[in-house]
Formats: sequence, C-alpha cells, structure tokens
Amino acid sequence: MTNFLELYDKDNPLILESGDELFPVRVAYQTYGNLNSDGTNALLICHALTGNSHAAGIVSESEVKNSKEKEFLHRYNEMYIGKAGWWNDLIGPGKTFDTNKYFIVSSNILGSCYGTTGPSDINPYTGAKYNFDFPVITVRDMVRVQYKLLKELGVKKLISVAGGSLGGMQVLEWGVMYPEFIETLIPIATTAKHSAWNIALNKVQREAITKDHKWNGGNYIEQPAYGLELAREIAMISYRSDISFQQKFERKRKNENYFDKYNQFEIEKYLDYQGEKLVNRFDTNSYLYLTYAMDLHNISFNRGNFKEVLGSIKAEVLNIGISTDILYHPRDQKEISKLIPKSKYEEIISPHGHDAFLIEFEQLSSMIKNFLG
Amino acid sequence: MTNFLELYDKDNPLILESGDELFPVRVAYQTYGNLNSDGTNALLICHALTGNSHAAGIVSESEVKNSKEKEFLHRYNEMYIGKAGWWNDLIGPGKTFDTNKYFIVSSNILGSCYGTTGPSDINPYTGAKYNFDFPVITVRDMVRVQYKLLKELGVKKLISVAGGSLGGMQVLEWGVMYPEFIETLIPIATTAKHSAWNIALNKVQREAITKDHKWNGGNYIEQPAYGLELAREIAMISYRSDISFQQKFERKRKNENYFDKYNQFEIEKYLDYQGEKLVNRFDTNSYLYLTYAMDLHNISFNRGNFKEVLGSIKAEVLNIGISTDILYHPRDQKEISKLIPKSKYEEIISPHGHDAFLIEFEQLSSMIKNFLG
Repeated sequence: MTNFLELYDKDNPLILESGDELFPVRVAYQTYGNLNSDGTNALLICHALTGNSHAAGIVSESEVKNSKEKEFLHRYNEMYIGKAGWWNDLIGPGKTFDTNKYFIVSSNILGSCYGTTGPSDINPYTGAKYNFDFPVITVRDMVRVQYKLLKELGVKKLISVAGGSLGGMQVLEWGVMYPEFIETLIPIATTAKHSAWNIALNKVQREAITKDHKWNGGNYIEQPAYGLELAREIAMISYRSDISFQQKFERKRKNENYFDKYNQFEIEKYLDYQGEKLVNRFDTNSYLYLTYAMDLHNISFNRGNFKEVLGSIKAEVLNIGISTDILYHPRDQKEISKLIPKSKYEEIISPHGHDAFLIEFEQLSSMIKNFLG
Repeated sequence: MTNFLELYDKDNPLILESGDELFPVRVAYQTYGNLNSDGTNALLICHALTGNSHAAGIVSESEVKNSKEKEFLHRYNEMYIGKAGWWNDLIGPGKTFDTNKYFIVSSNILGSCYGTTGPSDINPYTGAKYNFDFPVITVRDMVRVQYKLLKELGVKKLISVAGGSLGGMQVLEWGVMYPEFIETLIPIATTAKHSAWNIALNKVQREAITKDHKWNGGNYIEQPAYGLELAREIAMISYRSDISFQQKFERKRKNENYFDKYNQFEIEKYLDYQGEKLVNRFDTNSYLYLTYAMDLHNISFNRGNFKEVLGSIKAEVLNIGISTDILYHPRDQKEISKLIPKSKYEEIISPHGHDAFLIEFEQLSSMIKNFLG
C-alpha cells in the first residue's frame, strides 16, 4: 500500500542543491515489516529512473482505484493490477530483505510521477502545473527528501541502503551525505559520476521528446507520445545486451515477406511495445528532469577530488556490477569499489545487460544475504 | 575525380534480389593507379553507410563546382573542398593499397546519394523522384552493381576487396557471390548477419526520421532535419566507445552554471554538430534504405546453413575486429573468422570503438600490408 506524507512548507521549504526552494513536497512511500522500538532495524530501497515506491507485494484492484491513489498515482494505472513490485523476489518474510527482521522503506523519488512531487504537480505560487518550470533537481535532493521521510517515520539509522542504476546513485550519495545514519550500502549497476557516453544517451532521449511538437515546451495536455516512446526505445537498447536481444528475438519477423519494408523484425515490435507502455505509465516532463538529474550526478561535485570523496565513505559497501552492462560498465563498478575503503565487488554473470538487477534475483539474493549476514 | 557510368537499361535492367527491376543505374566511382593490360591488378574498396566513392585524394574546388558533379553530387558539397578521402592514409603511391602496383576502384553504393542511383533520383516511369517508392535494395544488390562496374572497366579479377562496417558486409558477400573473381577479402568491423541489437539501433534511427512530420512519407522538399539529425546522433553513440567520449569530452560544459538545464555538456554540442553536418551532406531517404539493407543483411539468407555458407568461402580472408567496437563486437568477427576456412583474425586495439576503422591507420596498414604481402 502506498502512503503519503507532506514534508515541507513555506516556512521550512526544501532547499534544493541548486539553491531553489520547493514546498510542499509530498512523498509517496511504501513500507514492509515493522520498525523496532529503537528505530534501528530499517533499510531503504531506492528505485531507478521509471520505477516507483511499489518495490514489493502485489498491486490490488482497490489500491489502484482508491480515490487518493487515483489523485496522486494517476500514472500508476490499471495495468499494474496483479503485478508484483519490482524487487518482490527480494523483499518479504524470509527473503533477502527479510521483513520478519527488517523495516523496509521504499519511496518514490523527488521529480518522479508516482505520488512524490514532480513537474506534473501544482505550483502553489501559480496554481498551475509546474511543467518545465519545475526546479532542477539532483540525486542529492532525492536523498535529502528520503532522509527527511525516514526521520518522520522514526527511523534512527539505516542498516543498509540498496538500489540499482539511478537507485545506486542515490545509494552512493547516502554514503557521503549521511555517514552517521547508515551502516552499509549496496550500490548496483551504477556509477559515481555520469560519463560522457551516459550523458550522450540521455541527451538523444531528451531530444526525441523536446523535438516532438506535442511536448510544447513542457505544456502538453496529452503526452507527447512520439517523443517519449522513442526515448524509451533508445533507452531499452542500452538496458539490454546484444546477447539477450539475440537470444530472445534473433532475426524473427512478423511475416515471411523478406523484402517488404513494412515487415518489422520482432525486436522492432518489442521496442514499439515498450515505448507505448511507458507513455501509458510515465510523465514526460518527469523523464526529462530525472535523466537530467542523472547527468548532473557526480559524487565529487563541490566536494573536491573524486578519489578522496569516494575514499571518505565510511560505510561497508557491497558493490555489484553486471558482466554485460554497457550502460554502467562493470569496469567502473570495480573502480568505485577500489576507492571506497571498506568495499567489496561482486559481479552478476548475466546475458541480460543493465536490466539484470531487475532479473537475476538468485545471484542478487545470495550476494546480499551473505553481505548483510 | 569522380566518374560516372550508366550500367543498366530497359532491355537489360538490374534484377534486384527482391525480384524488382531497376534501370538505369548510374554509378559514381573513383579509381586510383592503373589497370594492367590483363586486368589482374585491381582491388575494390567498399564504403560504409554514409560514405562515398571518394576514398583517396583531396577534393578540389573545381571538382565540387563542376556542373556534372553538381548535378549528381549535390550532397557532396563545398564542405568537402580540401578534405582528404576517408581512407586517404591507406591508398596512394607506396601506401598500404599501393597505387604504383594496384588499380584501386571505389564506387558509391546503390541506394546512396553520392552519384549512384538512389531514392533521390528520377524514376523513369513517373518522371518524378523515387523517394520512398524506390525499391528495397540489399547488400547483394550493391555487390552485383560493383561487379558489373568492374567488368565494364576491364577488370578480370580482384586481388582483394576491403571495407569496414556496411563496407565489410559487401566484402563478405563478394566472397559468396563471385568466388572465382576474387583472391582475398578484408572485412573489417562488420558482421555476417545483422543482429537483433543492430536492428534495434537502426530501427530507432529510422523511427526518428519517419516521426518527423517533415519526412512526409518520403516526399520532402527540404530535408527532415529534426529526424535525420537525431538519427545521426544515436548512431554516433554506437560508433564510438564510452572510453573515447570520456577522453575527449569528460563532463565539460558550455558554461559554469551547473544547474542551468540549458547548459549543455560538450558531448551534447558535439552530437548536435554531427547531426547537423549529416543533414547538410546526406539524403534522408537514402539513410532509410541503406539502414534497411543492413538489417536485411544475412550471409545465409536463401543459401542454407550459416556455418556452411561462411565455410564455403574460398578466398583468403583477413578478418579485422576492433577491441572496443560495441556495434559489431569483435566476438562476432572471431566467429566469422573461425568459420571461413582460409581466414585469420586480427584485432585493432583502440579506444575509439567502431569508428576505429576510419582512425587507426597505422594498425590497419601493418595488418593489411602483411596480409597482401
């Protein structure tokens, strides 16, 4: 079940990393398990770019159709009914993140569209949607909001923070921003600073969106579907490996007419399908803001030397790379792991590329169980 | 200097692999060195997706402004003046492809826009441009036209056929289509069949184009710049490696305003520049047809078993992969090399990714010189 908390107000606004102020900030979150009396058995789970707070459990029909959920979770639509959370295999009684022992918190990140304040919310100054006037947000801002939420929930410290991709960027920032509040970190398939190649991939995705005339400077009524679909399709190519696409689709096609230029390959249909699905479930402006937050991500920004900043992380870290990840190469994961003093590196061996952190639950489970002890 | 030959007519049309007929077919080509009296000292150089017949030499002002060139080479514009051909470092007197010994032929491929017949030419049946009514062409069709051209030029056999990327696909087809005409092959950074991942990358590029309303079903007057630019930018990400982007651009930006969402990273400006450059020099419909020809590329199509078809190649083959190529992975090159009986594999060690075949001339030169003996 998704809960909501409003965390900042005019007198106590969220001061963003950019210096801009933001209030109110509504946070959508889910919790699994129970917080112990001294507030010391909590773990935080951080989701990736188009994820949400529904990390575990099955979405019920009433949840989606409940009026409050409908107001704030309009992107969290009927296609979710009956679906399991994105890390459902890892979170639950007796599972890797054992809800018999731990109190697990998963919140929708700032700037997203699954209940936490983002560009599609109302700007209290204007009474209209923020749209592209929403302030620029960063991974540090996301983490700041998570910290505030945890304090409100009575959490006194975190046994661990875990997440993949953009979730892993949050995990690393936790290590620098709130060292006294955390014991361990589990960054997965991520990076300590977005590379030129990472930025390039996000740039073409944003360009696909902003070149869609329906985007209209961010002031769309209906989603700019052409642009957001294409952005998602480009992203999918970076999320999977050539090997996984080959295993699944080979050179199969819709029909036997080899030379028909409208005869799509199965992989093309798959990409179309993924693009359409995202348009039905994710806000375009959120996509722009969150990919930009990823591009701004640099653990050493305003803090000094890259190596020294990673070297200052005091938590015990389990750094997990994926053998076929082309988006956040295991090479970079290994480098991060070398620079963090109490860190070890483990690698998921998988044909599935970057997305393996949402697929290879057995390997993840054994690595994480072993690490959390 | 570019020469032109018209090769087919109504009575002797080009029968395409699809069964469609095409005539006339004008071929733009360049030659370097002299053909010996028995026509046995020739080599063919095959260009890649957006390349042209100008493989060697420097483009002079008069070449570009000459009226015939202007008519057929309208894409081959003034920005080329003073520029060297794409393999100029390898072709010339005393160079790897030694014009004192060899007669080198380089022709613009069928479907392109640098003088050889393509979608922007006039359909003799309608008197109007083909545009998207141009027939579907394949790599085999390109090779068939090259063979016809060589016969017209008096070439009796080829000492070698060399090329990278789409050029390498032509090289491999030469090995199967005209085994008696060739002695050796040098396929570089290529594949024997386009993979699902390769197709996916071409699909999003074509989608960027066809979703640009200016494309207009192929009937544009002005190029659909939004779409073609974006297609090129996506392609560039696959042509280079994360390492090369990082070396060149890091996280440098236009200005110091970190949180300004209009403050581009240098890599973004670079991609914009590359996109704009292509719009000025390449026809959008040609881009669609040639990427589709790449997707149709499968050495075993209509010929039986993949391994057996490659196993049937009788030429001596030097298969060159690139260590950081993510588009045509060296893994695939090695596999091709294992399947061709008289084949050896060599690898260019480079940070530059797929494009290394247009950059790493020293390594290419030593490998190819050694191979040609």
